[in-house]
Amino acid sequence: MPSLNELSATEIVRGVAAQKFTAESVVRACLSRIAAREPAVHAFASLDPELALKQARDLDRGTIRGALHGVPIGIKDVLDTADLPTEMGSPIYRGHRPARDAACVALLRAAGAVILGKTLTTEFAGMEPGATANPHNLAHTPGGSSSGSAAAVADFMLPAALGTQTGGSVLRPAAYCGVVGYKPTYNAFNRAGLKFAAESLDTIGLIARSIEDIELITAVLLGGRVAAPAPVAQAPRVGLCRTSLWDTAQAETRHAVEDAAARLAKAGATLREVTLPVAFAGLRTAARDTINSYERSKCMAAEWASNRERISERLRATIEHGLAMPYADYLAALELGENCRAQLDDVFKDLDVLLAPCANGEAPAGLASTGDPGFQAIWTILYVPTMTLPTHRGPNGLPVGIQLIARPHDDPRLFACARWVWERLRA
Amino acid sequence: MPSLNELSATEIVRGVAAQKFTAESVVRACLSRIAAREPAVHAFASLDPELALKQARDLDRGTIRGALHGVPIGIKDVLDTADLPTEMGSPIYRGHRPARDAACVALLRAAGAVILGKTLTTEFAGMEPGATANPHNLAHTPGGSSSGSAAAVADFMLPAALGTQTGGSVLRPAAYCGVVGYKPTYNAFNRAGLKFAAESLDTIGLIARSIEDIELITAVLLGGRVAAPAPVAQAPRVGLCRTSLWDTAQAETRHAVEDAAARLAKAGATLREVTLPVAFAGLRTAARDTINSYERSKCMAAEWASNRERISERLRATIEHGLAMPYADYLAALELGENCRAQLDDVFKDLDVLLAPCANGEAPAGLASTGDPGFQAIWTILYVPTMTLPTHRGPNGLPVGIQLIARPHDDPRLFACARWVWERLRA
Repeated sequence: MPSLNELSATEIVRGVAAQKFTAESVVRACLSRIAAREPAVHAFASLDPELALKQARDLDRGTIRGALHGVPIGIKDVLDTADLPTEMGSPIYRGHRPARDAACVALLRAAGAVILGKTLTTEFAGMEPGATANPHNLAHTPGGSSSGSAAAVADFMLPAALGTQTGGSVLRPAAYCGVVGYKPTYNAFNRAGLKFAAESLDTIGLIARSIEDIELITAVLLGGRVAAPAPVAQAPRVGLCRTSLWDTAQAETRHAVEDAAARLAKAGATLREVTLPVAFAGLRTAARDTINSYERSKCMAAEWASNRERISERLRATIEHGLAMPYADYLAALELGENCRAQLDDVFKDLDVLLAPCANGEAPAGLASTGDPGFQAIWTILYVPTMTLPTHRGPNGLPVGIQLIARPHDDPRLFACARWVWERLRA
Repeated sequence: MPSLNELSATEIVRGVAAQKFTAESVVRACLSRIAAREPAVHAFASLDPELALKQARDLDRGTIRGALHGVPIGIKDVLDTADLPTEMGSPIYRGHRPARDAACVALLRAAGAVILGKTLTTEFAGMEPGATANPHNLAHTPGGSSSGSAAAVADFMLPAALGTQTGGSVLRPAAYCGVVGYKPTYNAFNRAGLKFAAESLDTIGLIARSIEDIELITAVLLGGRVAAPAPVAQAPRVGLCRTSLWDTAQAETRHAVEDAAARLAKAGATLREVTLPVAFAGLRTAARDTINSYERSKCMAAEWASNRERISERLRATIEHGLAMPYADYLAALELGENCRAQLDDVFKDLDVLLAPCANGEAPAGLASTGDPGFQAIWTILYVPTMTLPTHRGPNGLPVGIQLIARPHDDPRLFACARWVWERLRA
């Protein structure tokens, strides 16, 4: 039997319910793993072991509270927590204590989750990295901006964590760290209590080590009962979508996508090439350069007015770019997004999901950059649900993920197809 | 010359710049009006006269800071302010002090506005009223949920205020109080630091006594330079849109809309009847019963978990409705909104703006209800920019407004047409 810290959320829920082990013993196992590894990995922005143990003991003393009873979960440090600091990866918010939990945190707690700690974020969920290292190789970035969430899950410090994605901040770190990352349809998980980066793109997502866990937590956050997973009636119809960024992909990413396509076809999936309409080639710039910068310059207005000197040079440049941007440019980017979203029915015609690259390649060496968000960002602005699965390895032995994409609001089909795909591609 | 508290924001900016009067003298005039009237009107949730005067004196001592230099502005009390409490119209947040200004507040301050006070909101911007009365007749509701913003502007306590609209919370109180209300295209004004009611509908808007002031503040919040208003090259093409709720309108509202249409046609506007597609009849229920309740039950998760007993019975019922709602119902409502938005191009074909009822009638008697949001809510879920103008009076001598509506992101055309309309319909 694996150590308790290696269990999935689903396994923890079952084991605690069956009284095979207590929530407290799970939390102790996670804390012990964290104590051993955190000095090297730096996945946490704040952690209060006594508070975590107290939550677990309270759960152990009561009746089963909900679908996540006893599951330790990490919370990206741009989401408010009432009992732990919320520091946004910025010295401006050092020691900041919000009055209340973010909505998603409150929903997890109400379902019996143990809020184990705040996971490290890049500065305000942007491009300026924190100290987190990739647990597969400490000299490589874990990706960002949900750096700590991905590293903690990959390193068996906890089974699942919340992240947020504005460009590629859930799927890229998940892929770099070799775990499952999920960005739901835009606005699916309630954002009350989230510090915005760029509001029309910010999406709360999940990082875990199994698709099953992603489904479990999703049901809790949507307020639904946890249904038995929908089996895929037949082999899925998959669109192989290289995107206009294909030439920016390294060999390991191109191999992962093409190898996945070949093996899925061999396993019975219907594969067909999908070429995105020409307009889609503008999405990366629209999302990253235009919408991100414009909206960033507005949602940081208070920090810009009062604490400009404590904002990193990189983020200051983004804000200055946004402040100088003609409103018409921003509007044109929004409208490009809307126009492309209106074409998604055609893109997905007769398909269940798309298969696409998730990141340029393995996690790059060094901690000065969290990598390129291009392959994730074009889907974020399309508001479609996406998932990465850790199917391959790169030349340095680091994880390489594929990306699966479904229609807006078609998240259940994404889950079902991802299960089918994972059963066939897992090593 | 009118008293300084009766000036528009535009007049204040000009007067302060020309050194005809100081920002401090404007604030003193507003405070004096508030001292006289507030015991009857109850427009404010919090007010700190000394702090307001200090802001004004700081402005008077410095160079012109921006396009709103010296303008007192009221902030609906669901928007964070660093130097005044933010109480959300709820005992749960009594004395609550956010760490920072909401983005829109910071943008106003940076442009030289004086944040005069927090205006009273219904409980969490919902349907449970606060103590605010209609300044035209204290026995009548001012409307809600931006009750204090509308009452304060109408009663010459300040020239302009921020509001928020989830159903009809900017336009209805503006119409009931006889002032100009503006809800921009969804997501135009940055929502960082807003307490959400229902995130996919919540829109920050403005209440003022002139279209010119609305344009001035809009330019500041969008980060643009304040351009000279675009003149309408020719008489606008107006669609008379009674909507499927027409039968719920009282005589004064039907008269206002039809009289406005007739006079505009006489003045040279092209008028044509617009019948909304059948599906649009479902928008009121989708917005009010479904999306509002579902999202409310999520974004209030923290308060529901820890302070349920301090939530009003009315709001508890909404939250319970949302918690029990099948996710599929919520999704269907979202999709109805999306489908109707996709038909807007047809609705607006060859038209500049629509002319529609704004509220059922005059402000109803009594303060126990803020009135019906139907006529405003169907446009909120369509994400279109809307404006109400105080063109008529009802049988009790209370104001009756008309509503003008433009395409998404076509707010500048809405402004231009509203000016044209106002010049022809003002008494």
